[in-house]
Amino acid sequence: MARINNHYLKLAAGYLFPEISRRVGEFSSTNPNAKLIRLGIGDVTRPLPPAVIEALHRGVDEMSAVATFKGYGPEQGHEFLRQLIAEHEYNSRGIGIEPGEIFISDGSKCDTGNIQEIFSADSTIAVADPVYPVYVDTNVMAGRTDDYDGEGRYHGIVYMPCTEANGFIPELPATEPDLIYLCFPNNPTGAVASRDTLTHWVDYARKTGAILLFDAAYEAYISDATIPHSIYEIDNAESVAIEFRSLSKNAGFTGTRCAYTVVPRALTATAADGRAVSVHDLWHRRQSTKFNGVSYPIQVGAAAVYTPEGRTQVRELIDYYMENARIIREGLSASGFTVFGGVNAPYIWLRTPNGLGSWPFFDDLLAKANVVGTPGSGFGPAGEGFFRLSAFGDRNDVGEAVERICRVY
Amino acid sequence: MARINNHYLKLAAGYLFPEISRRVGEFSSTNPNAKLIRLGIGDVTRPLPPAVIEALHRGVDEMSAVATFKGYGPEQGHEFLRQLIAEHEYNSRGIGIEPGEIFISDGSKCDTGNIQEIFSADSTIAVADPVYPVYVDTNVMAGRTDDYDGEGRYHGIVYMPCTEANGFIPELPATEPDLIYLCFPNNPTGAVASRDTLTHWVDYARKTGAILLFDAAYEAYISDATIPHSIYEIDNAESVAIEFRSLSKNAGFTGTRCAYTVVPRALTATAADGRAVSVHDLWHRRQSTKFNGVSYPIQVGAAAVYTPEGRTQVRELIDYYMENARIIREGLSASGFTVFGGVNAPYIWLRTPNGLGSWPFFDDLLAKANVVGTPGSGFGPAGEGFFRLSAFGDRNDVGEAVERICRVY
Repeated sequence: MARINNHYLKLAAGYLFPEISRRVGEFSSTNPNAKLIRLGIGDVTRPLPPAVIEALHRGVDEMSAVATFKGYGPEQGHEFLRQLIAEHEYNSRGIGIEPGEIFISDGSKCDTGNIQEIFSADSTIAVADPVYPVYVDTNVMAGRTDDYDGEGRYHGIVYMPCTEANGFIPELPATEPDLIYLCFPNNPTGAVASRDTLTHWVDYARKTGAILLFDAAYEAYISDATIPHSIYEIDNAESVAIEFRSLSKNAGFTGTRCAYTVVPRALTATAADGRAVSVHDLWHRRQSTKFNGVSYPIQVGAAAVYTPEGRTQVRELIDYYMENARIIREGLSASGFTVFGGVNAPYIWLRTPNGLGSWPFFDDLLAKANVVGTPGSGFGPAGEGFFRLSAFGDRNDVGEAVERICRVY
Repeated sequence: MARINNHYLKLAAGYLFPEISRRVGEFSSTNPNAKLIRLGIGDVTRPLPPAVIEALHRGVDEMSAVATFKGYGPEQGHEFLRQLIAEHEYNSRGIGIEPGEIFISDGSKCDTGNIQEIFSADSTIAVADPVYPVYVDTNVMAGRTDDYDGEGRYHGIVYMPCTEANGFIPELPATEPDLIYLCFPNNPTGAVASRDTLTHWVDYARKTGAILLFDAAYEAYISDATIPHSIYEIDNAESVAIEFRSLSKNAGFTGTRCAYTVVPRALTATAADGRAVSVHDLWHRRQSTKFNGVSYPIQVGAAAVYTPEGRTQVRELIDYYMENARIIREGLSASGFTVFGGVNAPYIWLRTPNGLGSWPFFDDLLAKANVVGTPGSGFGPAGEGFFRLSAFGDRNDVGEAVERICRVY
């Protein structure tokens, strides 16, 4: 008799974004004339760079002739793309990551969600609070947690609060988790980790045998030259860290789908009999068995990100969004809001006014300013009293949203 | 301390196709002038249909302008594609599957590999022998099996032998498994299931509470009008079966990546407390949490499969490969080989000559005819003494391969 994975029933009711959709839908249906501005979900709005468009067309054309048609590719990605990433994202920063250590995928959400499979089912995980919900939910599904506590947390997970007091940088956990999810530049707080902070984490992982799952999906938004873009800028990180990167937020691939994950060959974890096993080999096996590689034309398009024109055009995209971030940050600050982030990250993390809770502020903002944001508490209880605005909107919308917000509060 | 998922260490050394690659690579390096013909891996060789190419270009162009740009899409696929599939693949056959029951994905390998996650970790699974290795390996990884027996099987799995004696149609298992993987038209044997056979399975699943995981990736190759294309052509199947479909083998999407999985709303499985839980809801949650949808331009390309031109062009592709299948089947038969499949499926399953084992025949065929096929034993011990040839090659290559094989044996 077929029985379900009962761990799924532990999952708290809604994933954050569906709940936002529901409330927005409800508001829209009763206020059909309201002109909503959406700065909620972290989705980009600018078109793909022209160099990428051109390359996508080229990739499609290759699929139209026998001589250039591509069937199954390597599950880990085509060599041309792995080489470009190694060169431009790592070797150019003095990091010795090789093409063979880079796994091309269809998304960081997928990779950060799937990575836990290759580790022991009784691993203890640590996450920041607030946190990107995928890290937690995928571990709940895998049975690594106990029940939901009704207040935004699951028993059995080590939560590392990120607060105004610690500058939204989690402190080293008191207990010793096996797997530690870190995200810098941070979603949702926009905080970044200095070289010192990352060095502490790498040292901690080396000392305790933990593995760092380092989500660097927003690294392209770092404007401060002293902030590392990759965990591998820290000595010895290749023996303790996996890094997740994406083309979603720099080159606008949220609907096009291409990302990559670095699993260094130096990284090992312990088998039941105590021996060290290559984590690279496990991930390679996982991807070979359960994944069939990214669409060939999309990989050709992704490669164009690393051409001179592609690089310039991606830089323009990031500048566009970061100018949005500046407008939001400065506009709200001038209006008396306490704001964080938005300097090295495309997210503005603001303290809700008048001590409002995150969801009450969400509803209030929607009703009075017709602006959609993301309640901080949706990312965890430490996000209560905060609110995330995304800089990925259209420039005019962003300007108008800021005006409306300042008018209301 | 990070510990691995120890179940990975149970996996038998190599996935079949990497082992084939290794042997072919070794042969090629010592015989650099041999002109190899590859009829091994089931990868297509004909370019994408012109209607699909045109639509892919259109989809790419949409990504180049603000007004038509697409960011995150629904994880379950865009509505336009789900509707076309419901209409053309199901409703047109009198099957009441709705668009909302169709989950667009990037591959049947991914979906058949991931589906087990939503079921209990202690589920018993049943598979045919020979079997597509992904069904087994993904359950090994999830800990649903005991150790490898050294001879192609894992303890704890219910294997259903498919032999010449039973016409390569598995018999109902003596014990009662929870999840049953079925693949028709079959990879690797090319066998198809009649309406009666499928009715037996549906009745069995209804009686025992098992769920059928029905892989129909090759349904487009069915030429016999009496053979069902979908498990849902059988009454009540929607309450016991999940169906996997792919655009890889009909429209040539092996390198382009698009597939879909049908999880009917009527399908339930049992929770620990005995209540019936919607399997559809679980898969929806799984995909929402760990997947981000198929690339937008690729979905636009996939939709073109259902235009009048697209349908004609796909039919031409299938006819091309099925003519290859006829050439292989008839050529080898005339030469004294005992062959199966190749009528309603793009695979020819042949008995190895002179009682050779599958791998010795692989090596012999490679050495003497320079033809690459797939050893039947690579799909399971019941495949020993058999060999799979794929009809997905170039017409001239196929003709020459048959000539060479007939000359040698």
